[in-house]
Amino acid sequence: MSELQQKGLEFAKKIFDDVREMSRDVQGVTRQAFSAKETQVLEYLTQIGQKLQLEIQPDRAGNVWMTLPGKDRTLPAFVAGSHVDSVPQGGNYDGLAGVTAALTVAWWMRETGFVPERDYTVLMMRGEESSFFGKAYMGSLGMLGKLTAKDLALKIRDGSCTLAQAMLSCGIDTEAVSGGQPLVDTDRIAAFVELHIEQGPTLDAQTEARAGIVTGIRGNIRHKAVRILGEAAHSGATDKQYRHDALMAFTDWMQRIDRAWDRWLVKGEDLVFTVGVLKMASSAAISVIPGEVTISVDIRSLSADTAHRFHELMQKYGEEVAAERGVTIEYDPALLTAPSGVDAALSDRLEASAKAENIPCMRLASGAGHDSAVLGNNGIPVAMIFVANQLGSHNPHEAMKMQDFMQGTDILWAAVSHYDDK
Amino acid sequence: MSELQQKGLEFAKKIFDDVREMSRDVQGVTRQAFSAKETQVLEYLTQIGQKLQLEIQPDRAGNVWMTLPGKDRTLPAFVAGSHVDSVPQGGNYDGLAGVTAALTVAWWMRETGFVPERDYTVLMMRGEESSFFGKAYMGSLGMLGKLTAKDLALKIRDGSCTLAQAMLSCGIDTEAVSGGQPLVDTDRIAAFVELHIEQGPTLDAQTEARAGIVTGIRGNIRHKAVRILGEAAHSGATDKQYRHDALMAFTDWMQRIDRAWDRWLVKGEDLVFTVGVLKMASSAAISVIPGEVTISVDIRSLSADTAHRFHELMQKYGEEVAAERGVTIEYDPALLTAPSGVDAALSDRLEASAKAENIPCMRLASGAGHDSAVLGNNGIPVAMIFVANQLGSHNPHEAMKMQDFMQGTDILWAAVSHYDDK
Repeated sequence: MSELQQKGLEFAKKIFDDVREMSRDVQGVTRQAFSAKETQVLEYLTQIGQKLQLEIQPDRAGNVWMTLPGKDRTLPAFVAGSHVDSVPQGGNYDGLAGVTAALTVAWWMRETGFVPERDYTVLMMRGEESSFFGKAYMGSLGMLGKLTAKDLALKIRDGSCTLAQAMLSCGIDTEAVSGGQPLVDTDRIAAFVELHIEQGPTLDAQTEARAGIVTGIRGNIRHKAVRILGEAAHSGATDKQYRHDALMAFTDWMQRIDRAWDRWLVKGEDLVFTVGVLKMASSAAISVIPGEVTISVDIRSLSADTAHRFHELMQKYGEEVAAERGVTIEYDPALLTAPSGVDAALSDRLEASAKAENIPCMRLASGAGHDSAVLGNNGIPVAMIFVANQLGSHNPHEAMKMQDFMQGTDILWAAVSHYDDK
Repeated sequence: MSELQQKGLEFAKKIFDDVREMSRDVQGVTRQAFSAKETQVLEYLTQIGQKLQLEIQPDRAGNVWMTLPGKDRTLPAFVAGSHVDSVPQGGNYDGLAGVTAALTVAWWMRETGFVPERDYTVLMMRGEESSFFGKAYMGSLGMLGKLTAKDLALKIRDGSCTLAQAMLSCGIDTEAVSGGQPLVDTDRIAAFVELHIEQGPTLDAQTEARAGIVTGIRGNIRHKAVRILGEAAHSGATDKQYRHDALMAFTDWMQRIDRAWDRWLVKGEDLVFTVGVLKMASSAAISVIPGEVTISVDIRSLSADTAHRFHELMQKYGEEVAAERGVTIEYDPALLTAPSGVDAALSDRLEASAKAENIPCMRLASGAGHDSAVLGNNGIPVAMIFVANQLGSHNPHEAMKMQDFMQGTDILWAAVSHYDDK
């Protein structure tokens, strides 16, 4: 590692350490979407941008754009970044790695006196995680004016406020974010590159290629609250034939889905299925047969068709279980995110940059969704760099090696600095 | 119905209405064990006892004994009653029916000037339901000195206090209730009869016999908190083969148990199995694979052996699922309540009383546990009268017809008034 890279590593490490300290929870970190904590982290990062003499430009959706001016300011910018929020009690690197990598590249430019041909912009987005409002990509959708009135009415998980109220408390223009018109000029973005931890085990299982270039992003079909309604009754006095146990019906339903999922994987479909949240009625007790449970559903696939067909199969099994066990199932509206491609030329450039820097890398799909998918689906050329990480993601044990992070950041730096090479 | 019975019905109905009003919740009623609400209800009922000029005697476990003196006060008393607490958002009749029936009999005695040969005592017990502390029969066990230090350390479901703290707030002597010595002289109890709603569908399915005489009481094996520990991970980025989903493992475990339960019923075993409570880790979210769930377990049977063997089978299936899905299962100590017989001679007397009054009745087992089981297991001759009820129990929709209630109360009145017939 060169002295410059070593100093870059220290620059990045300080950001990770400071932000972790700032957002520490009982376990891991919590940077709730559209919260005072998210704002505090954004302000800290903005101060770093100020020290690097970047031009600071917040948008009306609450995201912050920090630009290092290029030689020809008429050219659309090369943008790099990611999101600053996190899931509750999550890891420090999900989102923050991409922001830090983008900032580290700006730091390198200042350190070496490099001035790019076009503007180089660090984009720091809010509210990417769906954990709090059941809706993902709120920051990127917001800056494209693509949030809906229904989205804004979504309640936070503890019911204490709506998304609109949370956004207003961050000074966001809730009319604009749901106005159908982009709040940023997408024509002024030549490329968007998001570096992100993989959040899966593939890269960490490699000895050579610790960095990856993403081939596509899984879309998803979600429900925030599917209710299974049975009949509460005394756990001792109600024999099996009289029961309509909502929780037992749930377990039956899930096992049918679990077995079908195995069969679909054997057929070669790309598919993951998760019930992340299960809530019981407030009257639940050790001696009461559950009369009601509410669950979340998250179906993801690289293929919109696969996700759609599995969603239908899930409902078919639900009908079977409902009929057999005397329960009813009520669905809230499904939330859809389409799978997303990446820009082939931009991805090739990233791979070429890695080769030029002698950094081994591989192509792989993204299991998780990302703001990049939203930007890509709206006509912006996007690409993603993945960095190996340990112990998964969306949990407090998520880990990442700084050496792996710096390899990914090197690819970004090389891609930015050679973007306008003739 | 005679004029006396009609007036008795009005007396009882007013008690049900007043106490329902006093303990109304969002749905149904809540009379939390060892709470100010339970105390308030006890005080209201005690005032009725005072109006009937009963001798009021609280015991150091917080239960209240109200005695109508008999002709020969050296004889041990005929005691009738039940519990005043309820499950959260439960029905009004579970427990309260037995107290009201016992009070109605005392009212009839005063109304008709009847003086029994021996003392007749209305017993109003606290804390029978396990919903709040995960432990049942706390009032009856307490007055027998049979609570343990471990029981007293049990935390209430929201974690806000221990059983000892709740009892102290009701002025209960927590040393005495766990001292191993009875706080009441059980030799002074000739008989204890508890009238209770059936809490199951059997009697309500009868056209003739709307009252029942209980043949035995199911015992149970319970766990308050069994933890299933998997690995939280990103719901999109973690493929099936890398998952250790604690909730999906739970559904697999339950379905194995559910199928075995069916087989055991076919074999003729008496058995019910319930998971009434499931809690997820605070970090649970729509996009996070569940890393941890905690469940309650309630296994009941008229046969201690059946309950014990099914408890072992449940653990065997737990081991299988843990091995196959890479999760671990941690058990809290099992709480045991032995099945209980009833006093044959006393039960025969109840049946004879019903016959004498031309009230059709049938013999049936009690699926639910009752304080009667605790008293019976401690050498007191006990018997139970069941009354048909609708829509199960331990839920806000639990219902009971006053006519059915009055038939059960008539049986009690006949049994008390003829107890010392030569």
